[in-house]
Amino acid sequence: MKVIFGIDVGGTNIKIGKFQEEGIIDKYSVKTIVSQDYKDLINQITSEISSHLGDDELVGIGIGIPGPVVNGVVLGAQNIKWEKVNLKEILSTIYPNVWIEVMNDANAATIGEWYFGTGTQKPNAVLITLGTGVGGGIIVNNKLLEGKDGSAGEIGHIKIFPFKGRDCSCGLYGCLEQYTSATGIARTARGMMRKRNTSLKKYYRRLNSKIVFDEAEKGDEVALEVTLKSAYYLAIGIVNICNVFNPDVVILGGGVSKAGPFFLDKVRNNFKDLAFFSLKDTPILSASLFNDAGIYGAYAKVKMNLFKTGGECNNGD
Amino acid sequence: MKVIFGIDVGGTNIKIGKFQEEGIIDKYSVKTIVSQDYKDLINQITSEISSHLGDDELVGIGIGIPGPVVNGVVLGAQNIKWEKVNLKEILSTIYPNVWIEVMNDANAATIGEWYFGTGTQKPNAVLITLGTGVGGGIIVNNKLLEGKDGSAGEIGHIKIFPFKGRDCSCGLYGCLEQYTSATGIARTARGMMRKRNTSLKKYYRRLNSKIVFDEAEKGDEVALEVTLKSAYYLAIGIVNICNVFNPDVVILGGGVSKAGPFFLDKVRNNFKDLAFFSLKDTPILSASLFNDAGIYGAYAKVKMNLFKTGGECNNGD
Repeated sequence: MKVIFGIDVGGTNIKIGKFQEEGIIDKYSVKTIVSQDYKDLINQITSEISSHLGDDELVGIGIGIPGPVVNGVVLGAQNIKWEKVNLKEILSTIYPNVWIEVMNDANAATIGEWYFGTGTQKPNAVLITLGTGVGGGIIVNNKLLEGKDGSAGEIGHIKIFPFKGRDCSCGLYGCLEQYTSATGIARTARGMMRKRNTSLKKYYRRLNSKIVFDEAEKGDEVALEVTLKSAYYLAIGIVNICNVFNPDVVILGGGVSKAGPFFLDKVRNNFKDLAFFSLKDTPILSASLFNDAGIYGAYAKVKMNLFKTGGECNNGD
Repeated sequence: MKVIFGIDVGGTNIKIGKFQEEGIIDKYSVKTIVSQDYKDLINQITSEISSHLGDDELVGIGIGIPGPVVNGVVLGAQNIKWEKVNLKEILSTIYPNVWIEVMNDANAATIGEWYFGTGTQKPNAVLITLGTGVGGGIIVNNKLLEGKDGSAGEIGHIKIFPFKGRDCSCGLYGCLEQYTSATGIARTARGMMRKRNTSLKKYYRRLNSKIVFDEAEKGDEVALEVTLKSAYYLAIGIVNICNVFNPDVVILGGGVSKAGPFFLDKVRNNFKDLAFFSLKDTPILSASLFNDAGIYGAYAKVKMNLFKTGGECNNGD
């Protein structure tokens, strides 16, 4: 049987999916070997492929790396201690007759969620990942939007407090990420709970967005205010994207989006209030693949290019 | 000689360009016939074409209309008192062997400025028109971005004051248009000149952005503050677009952009301060075709589709 490996390399774990053309056969996860020599990690990947290939015929490998990738070359990836590595060339030498796709991990996740997940291959989709930070990706006319230097989709750095906002890791301030990431929501909560009577106080140090939403749902007033504020902030960011893109669908992924309808409905209501009139009905949906989006996207990219099915998705390599 | 007419229909004037494949031969402008019967305006257009065709062979007509256009059908155009008109079909019946393109006028201007003007056919370009309102258009991978319903590119309604801003004609508030259009800049000036000693006072009723910039350049303190604020507001809007699109170039058109380097340099400086680090060098340039962008764009669309040169540009018809 012809198989494709979809691989998502993270700083802690490598997720590996084994796919045939019709879909996934197997998936598993291993601890990432982080070493000064990039070859150690490549050896780990090739030996994982060997040990799971069995009698199948390897026809494609798609791999997402946590760093910028241009034409199959990883420009650097801090989490795995890589400097510049021409990963596509290296893998093509090891696997001469196998279709290789190397891509940025966030791009892989966007493609995965668009192609196999909530996006259902709609021509224009926006994915916003609300985790420790806020990332995302945008599909325009069935293609991942890359922009001039592959820097498109920096959704987390849309300015929602353009005049005086929280400092951001990007060196600037007022960025969406500082208000709608898991850490941003916790920060809003810490700011608002001072001198107030709230159940959030007992979670002070380990406060996160899930706790905030849970306590709000149980009726805590401060937690509800934090939830409403955070939903409003996120809606502003989505409005600014939709006013420019007019997408078929907006998909929210990452930990924060797992809160379910309690938070999501508030985001939708605010969006309806704030969006340009012709855009108010844009669906805002939860992601469905979550942590598996990367392996599905890495696979999808190989599948699309190798079998020429579905839309095109060139992500710079 | 084979010729194409590029026509830009406005509420006051119709601009007409006569082009051969290599470029413009002639251009002129006539007063628009605005009547309850849409046929009057169509008759005006066809008789203008007849009287300027001479011995040339008509091979294409591109026409921009001030209203939404889907598949060659004008859905309505208030300024010329049109309701729904299937203009492409009507013109195709009159000119059976001529390539017809009907498009929205703002889309025509975007294509014109991108193809023949400052955009120089770069794959990813953003055009922002700063006039009475703020409009724009976006080119992604050599195509005009339309979005799901043709509503993409509503740049004027990006929210730069998301929490408490000026009311906007769109029914919402805090939109870029209210701060960076010619009228928005005048409004900022009127707000700031109260109880201050400023040369702007003598222009109170007829105040516009040009007067503000001119007085600022002459050293008026309030006018300079208004100029700096307006440049900052515009930079915020451009940052929010660039963080998501990573375009090759941002082009500023419309009356406000004609102010020259005095205002534009301030916009550029603010952009450099506020943009995501990898985007700081995005060129921000003045439009070059201005009022002629529409006729050039209408022509470009015919040229691209008829002669299949350059990029593709489908704008929904």
